[in-house]
Amino acid sequence: MRAVLLHGAHDVRVDEVTKPQIVEDGDAIIKLAAACVCGSDLWAYRGIDPITTPISVGHEYCGVVQEVGPSVKNVKPGDFVVGSFFASDNTCEICRSGYQSSCLDRRPMGAENCQAEYLRVPLADGTLVATPTMPDPDLIPSLLAASDVLGTGWFAAKAAEVGPGKTVAVIGDGAVGLLAVLSAKLLGADRIIAMSRHESRQKLALEFGATDIVAERGDEGVARIKALTGGLGVHSALEAVGTQESMMQAIRATRQGGHVGYVGVSHDVSLPGLELFFSHVHLHGGPAPVRDYLPELIERIMKREINPGRVFDLELPFDDAAEAYRAMDERRAIKALLRF
Amino acid sequence: MRAVLLHGAHDVRVDEVTKPQIVEDGDAIIKLAAACVCGSDLWAYRGIDPITTPISVGHEYCGVVQEVGPSVKNVKPGDFVVGSFFASDNTCEICRSGYQSSCLDRRPMGAENCQAEYLRVPLADGTLVATPTMPDPDLIPSLLAASDVLGTGWFAAKAAEVGPGKTVAVIGDGAVGLLAVLSAKLLGADRIIAMSRHESRQKLALEFGATDIVAERGDEGVARIKALTGGLGVHSALEAVGTQESMMQAIRATRQGGHVGYVGVSHDVSLPGLELFFSHVHLHGGPAPVRDYLPELIERIMKREINPGRVFDLELPFDDAAEAYRAMDERRAIKALLRF
Repeated sequence: MRAVLLHGAHDVRVDEVTKPQIVEDGDAIIKLAAACVCGSDLWAYRGIDPITTPISVGHEYCGVVQEVGPSVKNVKPGDFVVGSFFASDNTCEICRSGYQSSCLDRRPMGAENCQAEYLRVPLADGTLVATPTMPDPDLIPSLLAASDVLGTGWFAAKAAEVGPGKTVAVIGDGAVGLLAVLSAKLLGADRIIAMSRHESRQKLALEFGATDIVAERGDEGVARIKALTGGLGVHSALEAVGTQESMMQAIRATRQGGHVGYVGVSHDVSLPGLELFFSHVHLHGGPAPVRDYLPELIERIMKREINPGRVFDLELPFDDAAEAYRAMDERRAIKALLRF
Repeated sequence: MRAVLLHGAHDVRVDEVTKPQIVEDGDAIIKLAAACVCGSDLWAYRGIDPITTPISVGHEYCGVVQEVGPSVKNVKPGDFVVGSFFASDNTCEICRSGYQSSCLDRRPMGAENCQAEYLRVPLADGTLVATPTMPDPDLIPSLLAASDVLGTGWFAAKAAEVGPGKTVAVIGDGAVGLLAVLSAKLLGADRIIAMSRHESRQKLALEFGATDIVAERGDEGVARIKALTGGLGVHSALEAVGTQESMMQAIRATRQGGHVGYVGVSHDVSLPGLELFFSHVHLHGGPAPVRDYLPELIERIMKREINPGRVFDLELPFDDAAEAYRAMDERRAIKALLRF
């Protein structure tokens, strides 16, 4: 089968590799409906770690079950399924508390190859959620978005306690930030301030429910948010970048007693204790427990209540994966979908 | 009147100073029932900042109203009152959301002199809570504890979402940590692990409701807590120290999805972003909004349901203030009360 492999920094190739097989009793093999590139794939693409042997990339997936291991009960061949970027048993105490992405037996799907024609999913019973019917082809982008970027934006909003009466700021205008805007809207926020200085992203933020756009960053961005909120700051800040600047922007834009939900994977972030202490904010985040949200998100997508697939502003044939990475790296595309 | 002044590091004196007077329309003048030394007073005592002119210390207080400014409506001369270490208007949006210690017009009571015979309290209407009747003298230590250390321990427990079914760890065995144990008990925690290696403090922790004592610290302390909680860690960690070690101990002792409530004033603390991200904990804390809790805490004290005054294990005449500081500095006393 064909699979995307990263041979080195900025060296993406589509190679012929062996099709995955059932290894554990709880595995499922899926024929993927499409593949996509995540902003976090760009860290490897840009060479954050040296690459000595070709590595698999990607961790988002949906498609049709081909085969299941002997212990699998919840999905069967022919089902259309969506899963999260961490496989989870969904039975341990941490899973049951709603933190499947910290499952005691979690498996990072990045270790499999999700940018490929077929995928092995371990712990299929706890990981995969089947759609009630076979989705129309135009729903594939949205279902693929549910696998990570939508679920992650949703977690940012839940972690920041977004709800009716709340004013929200979203820091980050990548796919996760934009879907955090959509999530805040779905959760009933009164006012949603999207921080973005890219016109196409601002437009999509407004389409998803943003009420205000702030183009400034850092201290200026914080000052603008304070000015928009009577000097107090927002009730909820949704952080979807993962840098020192974006984290401090989120903390400083939030009023005392407010909530920061952070989902950008922290890179070189160090939070000053005394400032955090006197900020009086609540801080929660981490890898989104997407599995917990999939049933609800899939239902909303299947009913066409939401269209998170709008974040895919570039579609390419699978064999053009290298161009998909280039376009995202150069910020020409928000998120790229690869069609087989 | 007599007042404690810090003339330099380790140089505490009781001086004759001018009695405070009404300055603002919203002020009250209180005759203090007793005074006390806080663990956080020791930072100044130990010389964290150079002292060039004698400074006031202390920020905990209760006593009888002597005089009020013309706009004061909620308290009157003769009332016995308790207030918090931040005066607050209790009407602004931040106060109304339950964060009076971040009141938009807050006044640090440390700027007044709370270790003195009389005290000026600004914003008296929003700050002071009167007891329903004149308290018996033996309740004074508990009411003085409500002013800070009890309210702060209570906030740690609330911030960490302590409640029935929860397993709790308390990091810190000073007055705040011990009263965090009491608070966790009052809030219905199933199991309360107190971290302490001082026998007298362990005994008081057990009296306040601790079910387990862990004497180890740092990585060993975390390992012991994991061993006591099936490898998962606690649901709620209450941090009452404020150092890098104690903060990391709290975060690492908490299970994924759990809550850390931190009330130790952070000194040289820097939280590593990536570890925090994957810890999946909720983090909340800061200066305790004691004003919000005073009505409930005072009621419990007046009904003799709780006896937080037990943290005072040293009582001295006011003129022996220097010895009170020495005893706390050398950890010979948990908390010292000064009687006029």
